[in-house]
Amino acid sequence: MSNTFTLDPRLEAESLPFGRLKFCEVRLFDDARFPWLVLVPRRAALVEIIDLDAAEQMALLDDIIVASRMLKAATKCHKLNVAALGNQVRQLHVHVIARFESDGAWPNPVWGRGKRVPYDPQAAANFTERLKAAMGLR
Amino acid sequence: MSNTFTLDPRLEAESLPFGRLKFCEVRLFDDARFPWLVLVPRRAALVEIIDLDAAEQMALLDDIIVASRMLKAATKCHKLNVAALGNQVRQLHVHVIARFESDGAWPNPVWGRGKRVPYDPQAAANFTERLKAAMGLR
Repeated sequence: MSNTFTLDPRLEAESLPFGRLKFCEVRLFDDARFPWLVLVPRRAALVEIIDLDAAEQMALLDDIIVASRMLKAATKCHKLNVAALGNQVRQLHVHVIARFESDGAWPNPVWGRGKRVPYDPQAAANFTERLKAAMGLR
Repeated sequence: MSNTFTLDPRLEAESLPFGRLKFCEVRLFDDARFPWLVLVPRRAALVEIIDLDAAEQMALLDDIIVASRMLKAATKCHKLNVAALGNQVRQLHVHVIARFESDGAWPNPVWGRGKRVPYDPQAAANFTERLKAAMGLR
């Protein structure tokens, strides 16, 4: 048995470290086509939002709000997409994605749209810094 | 100007009346392939979750939890998908979908998977009743 939080290997492989919010580990999804954060609650063995107790649900919501505002402030996106799917990676995680009418998937969801385009390391670092600078802004 | 809540015409056309939760109008998405509820906050001019104030965000979360538990209890689904996308219909709405490893879209998201299969009216009524009977169950 394990109560230790570990990141699902597939999530880890497809994303870059970004930081931590109150309840979640935050990853930058490694696809330069879409500004995209993934929030992963730091608790073992979670699958569904309804697996969380009420306080944890609120903590997750708070983190979603922070990530959403950060993305919106930094990118001036046209729309935010927020989703907990988990059909492929079972560990509970929430996608927060900044969408543009000009992006390659619009107006469809981003999942399953061709191949991921990994960031150039410098571009990932720059974008991470830009997002963090926007934290707390609306 | 209008503070009156009205359902987006496309959402209305693609779904059936289901009922009301504390904060949201609930619609049964009219696609018999997937057990699928759509929650629409009863407030005018909403687009993003971050447009809600803190109390409203919590009310939306509560309704998402109720709808999720209802679907899970009634269908014994393998996974819940919860998403606020809104790229096509701007009015804030949250999809809560019961997913099965045997469904026609698994493990992909349900959006954009072929044509909607409208319910037979009796089947919609039966499923609605089954879901409501499961309300409050886990």
